Amino acid sequence: MDAAGPTPPAPAAEREPLSLAEIRDIWPLLAHGDRIEAFLLLPRDEAEDFFFGLQARDQADVVLGVPAREQRSWLRSLPPDDAADLIQSAPLEKREAMLSLLDDATRREVTALLAYAEDAAGGLMNPRYVRVRPEMTVDEAISYVRKQMREQTRTIYYVFVLDGEQRLLGVVSFSALFNAAVRARVSDIMRTQVIAIPDQMDQEAVAQKFAQSRLLALPVVDPTGKMKGIVTADDVVDVVREEATEDMQKVGGVEALDAPYLEIGMPSMIRKRVGWLCVLFLGEMLTASAMGFFEHEIARAVVLALFIPLIISSGGNSGSQATTLVIRAMALGELRLKDWYRVIRREFIAGLGLGLVLSVIGFLRIVLWEGLFHTYGPHYVGIGLTVGLSLLGVVLWGTIAGSMLPFILRRFGFDPASASAPFVATLVDVFGLVIYFTAAAAILGGTLL
Amino acid sequence: MDAAGPTPPAPAAEREPLSLAEIRDIWPLLAHGDRIEAFLLLPRDEAEDFFFGLQARDQADVVLGVPAREQRSWLRSLPPDDAADLIQSAPLEKREAMLSLLDDATRREVTALLAYAEDAAGGLMNPRYVRVRPEMTVDEAISYVRKQMREQTRTIYYVFVLDGEQRLLGVVSFSALFNAAVRARVSDIMRTQVIAIPDQMDQEAVAQKFAQSRLLALPVVDPTGKMKGIVTADDVVDVVREEATEDMQKVGGVEALDAPYLEIGMPSMIRKRVGWLCVLFLGEMLTASAMGFFEHEIARAVVLALFIPLIISSGGNSGSQATTLVIRAMALGELRLKDWYRVIRREFIAGLGLGLVLSVIGFLRIVLWEGLFHTYGPHYVGIGLTVGLSLLGVVLWGTIAGSMLPFILRRFGFDPASASAPFVATLVDVFGLVIYFTAAAAILGGTLL
Repeated sequence: MDAAGPTPPAPAAEREPLSLAEIRDIWPLLAHGDRIEAFLLLPRDEAEDFFFGLQARDQADVVLGVPAREQRSWLRSLPPDDAADLIQSAPLEKREAMLSLLDDATRREVTALLAYAEDAAGGLMNPRYVRVRPEMTVDEAISYVRKQMREQTRTIYYVFVLDGEQRLLGVVSFSALFNAAVRARVSDIMRTQVIAIPDQMDQEAVAQKFAQSRLLALPVVDPTGKMKGIVTADDVVDVVREEATEDMQKVGGVEALDAPYLEIGMPSMIRKRVGWLCVLFLGEMLTASAMGFFEHEIARAVVLALFIPLIISSGGNSGSQATTLVIRAMALGELRLKDWYRVIRREFIAGLGLGLVLSVIGFLRIVLWEGLFHTYGPHYVGIGLTVGLSLLGVVLWGTIAGSMLPFILRRFGFDPASASAPFVATLVDVFGLVIYFTAAAAILGGTLL
Repeated sequence: MDAAGPTPPAPAAEREPLSLAEIRDIWPLLAHGDRIEAFLLLPRDEAEDFFFGLQARDQADVVLGVPAREQRSWLRSLPPDDAADLIQSAPLEKREAMLSLLDDATRREVTALLAYAEDAAGGLMNPRYVRVRPEMTVDEAISYVRKQMREQTRTIYYVFVLDGEQRLLGVVSFSALFNAAVRARVSDIMRTQVIAIPDQMDQEAVAQKFAQSRLLALPVVDPTGKMKGIVTADDVVDVVREEATEDMQKVGGVEALDAPYLEIGMPSMIRKRVGWLCVLFLGEMLTASAMGFFEHEIARAVVLALFIPLIISSGGNSGSQATTLVIRAMALGELRLKDWYRVIRREFIAGLGLGLVLSVIGFLRIVLWEGLFHTYGPHYVGIGLTVGLSLLGVVLWGTIAGSMLPFILRRFGFDPASASAPFVATLVDVFGLVIYFTAAAAILGGTLL
């Protein structure tokens, strides 16, 4: 049995084949040729287990890497939805040849799946599922289900009840079917309250349906109510991980990597990061221009410059908190566009509270340092008030800007996760400087300035 | 049938009961009393669908909110793993009473589950699954499976083969069992290559096992190899969403909220945010001290102050990118502790590349502005070189610090996600100032300084 942790490596011999656990362990580190070599040395059943668990991109590499006479058997070992994902991940010029390796029925299914966008419910679904008619008796339904199981499905979830036009009428759990009186009609025992997923639904919304329903498989229907396939929870686990990764990378100010960290090539790694970094840099250049306006103030009171990083970064931090919370809540379906008003009200209060706390700490810090080290000279109270007031303003502005930017982006059809934390921080920096020097002019004008 | 989108609301009548879709829609906005009222107006089957899909915390609220005579039926409608989660989310003083509502067998199972940490495999698993003995014939196994289905499980996934000591020997898919020759032995048709999950495995690792195996249910075993239950993919969907949410919130510099954004009370919302914000603020105070050291330089060349936000925020942004990438790759199991050397090598190159790009842009910006507006005076080349060189150093430092901090935290047993982007930014700010003024002294010493 394959224990869950990596098993200790076997004693080294010459070209000792790697165990399944070892291959899983070092797969990301292997070059293409070594991967194929290690894969081909596995016994067929272990190789299958391993193959089924790979990402579609790696599966495509394997199928294209193994000897030509084995390609067909590997491709045909996959259910149609996974075969479609694999073919979608293969280079364009190889796709025709791969499709031709499939049997006719599967090729038709896969071709139909390839027409769906990869991130729509239709692109996730498996077109094979077990179906019965409502007018069948339980006895007839059981034989028909067993026939379908023999022919096409590896695991069974639910039995779907369709009418003559393939419209979804209800669902029967497998155990309900097997435990019903044999003379009962399917229509008597089916549940008609079915959560169905439209085939064009975005995969993030599909994941929410799963989290709400706690079922292992949900039916996919087209706009006319015809059933097209099922989406299973194991595929959704992948989707949820991928979507969370993309969102997190975007929030961190990186384009979504679409490959594991260690596998992505250095040129594309830099490309994915330099774009945003340059945008942020150009945005941040506005701070230099903003500071240019206040050059005279700085020259007259260099002490003001000391607190610039403190103030702008506090705004950035509070903005980063707010934007992260809102983006994640949107991704989880907890916040919709129309909730913006409730959010701004909450963030206004939160921002005031957080700003007040920092404000008081900042003021005390300046008073304390003056008492201890005489750092800030005779105007220390004014300086303290300037810093405190600016902190309040900057934190409040940071929370509001950070929480509203995702709504604005979404309203105009962009991905809210593009409101990356660094982007919000940059936005807040420029305004933070204006707030700070305005406060300074108001409080210290006539004394220090 | 319940279509996936919210259905249009029924024409308003006096206290018209809400539809299932409407309740799903407005649930987060309802007060406790209104929730219970709306819930009780649903027909039993719709109420069940809705109840099963709720988070454990909300399920507990519902059970504690409905009339006493209905509590038992709701609690008993859940499988033991969900009942355990529910009881764990209920206030301490209510747990005994809730346990006493369960039937004896389930109470024993639930009590056993409650002994596991909530985020370990044992806390996720369902102790009910379908089991057979290896020496049974297929015929015997089928009758035994049907008997178990009648008695306890709502849906069937796989049939697990156990020996007399409950040790896991293998697994048979349901369709393989039904399609095998009736005289065959279970041991002939079972697969012995089973991915098993140790009962103490962390739930994040469990999610990885699922992503690797693409199965709908995995068996959980204790250290002696005895099977304790199964974890199903629908529970893992929840886990993956929760873990990603927590990580993202931590990276954004917030403590994990453990409740939906709109539902968390304002005091705890502020508490979850003010802690980190204060820590960061105290850290950022070091920038004021660092700048204090360079007060004379600033006084002599105020122009230097103009670029401070630009330089430190560039370091913060590149650090935020690096730390986000590394934290997410760790959570996905793509990076382990021992990979730190490969990461630092990659990040060194990436940091050099990114730093060079910003460095050149920064230098050109200063030369260009001087040409256009004569902003920076006769020493503009020196200023440009100082800014350019500092950017290179700061970005490089940001990438390296940002990518290594999660490793260091993990090495000492902390959660790598605590290396929040704002924390890295703060760390980089202080060093960024030192780099900048050191570069300025080296390049501009004797001329501007």
